[in-house]
Amino acid sequence: MAENSLINRLIDALRCLPGVGPKSAQRMTFYLLERNREGARRLAQALNNAVENVGHCSFCRTLSESDICGLCANKGRDHSQLCIVEMPADVHAVEQSTSYRGLYFVLMGHLSPLDGIGPGEIGLDQLALRLNGDEIKEVILATNPTVEGEATAHYIAEMVHQRGLKVTRIAFGVPFGGELEYLDGGTLSHALSGRREI
Amino acid sequence: MAENSLINRLIDALRCLPGVGPKSAQRMTFYLLERNREGARRLAQALNNAVENVGHCSFCRTLSESDICGLCANKGRDHSQLCIVEMPADVHAVEQSTSYRGLYFVLMGHLSPLDGIGPGEIGLDQLALRLNGDEIKEVILATNPTVEGEATAHYIAEMVHQRGLKVTRIAFGVPFGGELEYLDGGTLSHALSGRREI
Repeated sequence: MAENSLINRLIDALRCLPGVGPKSAQRMTFYLLERNREGARRLAQALNNAVENVGHCSFCRTLSESDICGLCANKGRDHSQLCIVEMPADVHAVEQSTSYRGLYFVLMGHLSPLDGIGPGEIGLDQLALRLNGDEIKEVILATNPTVEGEATAHYIAEMVHQRGLKVTRIAFGVPFGGELEYLDGGTLSHALSGRREI
Repeated sequence: MAENSLINRLIDALRCLPGVGPKSAQRMTFYLLERNREGARRLAQALNNAVENVGHCSFCRTLSESDICGLCANKGRDHSQLCIVEMPADVHAVEQSTSYRGLYFVLMGHLSPLDGIGPGEIGLDQLALRLNGDEIKEVILATNPTVEGEATAHYIAEMVHQRGLKVTRIAFGVPFGGELEYLDGGTLSHALSGRREI
């Protein structure tokens, strides 16, 4: 098969997907061309539609196909709670598995001065404007428990404190269904220091 | 996020890929929209191009964007050898790792009477026409070592024998780098019964 044949170009293009190496890309290509051309057409259409029409919500910065996303536009949600996450995938995860009914603010990253990512790059000026309004009563920090995520959470906590609002951090500890024996030390010491009276 | 949002539709569409479940599809979607829209556009383009333009070689039945594929059209290859494989991916595999320089014939499946797949469905009438010509001297059977693949190989071997041509089957045995200790019994007994003098 020629190097730049359409088949090889499709194999190459599929490798842009995370977790797809040369062998999987080849398997996907042959599968699509031999057995599921309709699926391939639908996928191409869905890719184009999403890439062209999905932008960011001008209110919470999450991925959205409309100027204001469905969550922010929903009058039924609690507009006094604001959950701060790093990525749109985190919004998806919280929505899918919790009963949280407040709003979100998506940083699209975390503070990382060495990479040139400061408060402006993660939308903290926009967040400040919202905190200055009188709608928000509680800010929930749900950034990842990494060094950068923690630093970002502390920075935002400071911003919120200055305005005299309530700020909380999601709980870290033993994951549900986990076994103490196999848990890493960091998580275990978090779980112990964060113990609660019952 | 609404059920039929463009993001959810892209997640659904990605699930047509083999080996991609709901979680991977979600990860791919967020990755593409957040970090690699250019890759997503290229992928959509490559999918459309391949689906619209890749058909089957009218000579060997493999996937090809031209009426006669590059292998069949190549005068430099040995037109007296014909390697019979089940799928285009097998052609790809043989081409990538062996020094075989003959031609191929792709069955696009194997005999499977219970599923209504008889000799006509896997192009054996077309193969018969080629065997009746005087170009082919040897037929190499490289169908898979499954029940159906073996049955198909036997059926074709019979066709070739009737025409007095040479027919061979690829060797089955211990895979290179494998260890006897961990090998399944079927392969090991094949390897023993197929032993060669050195």
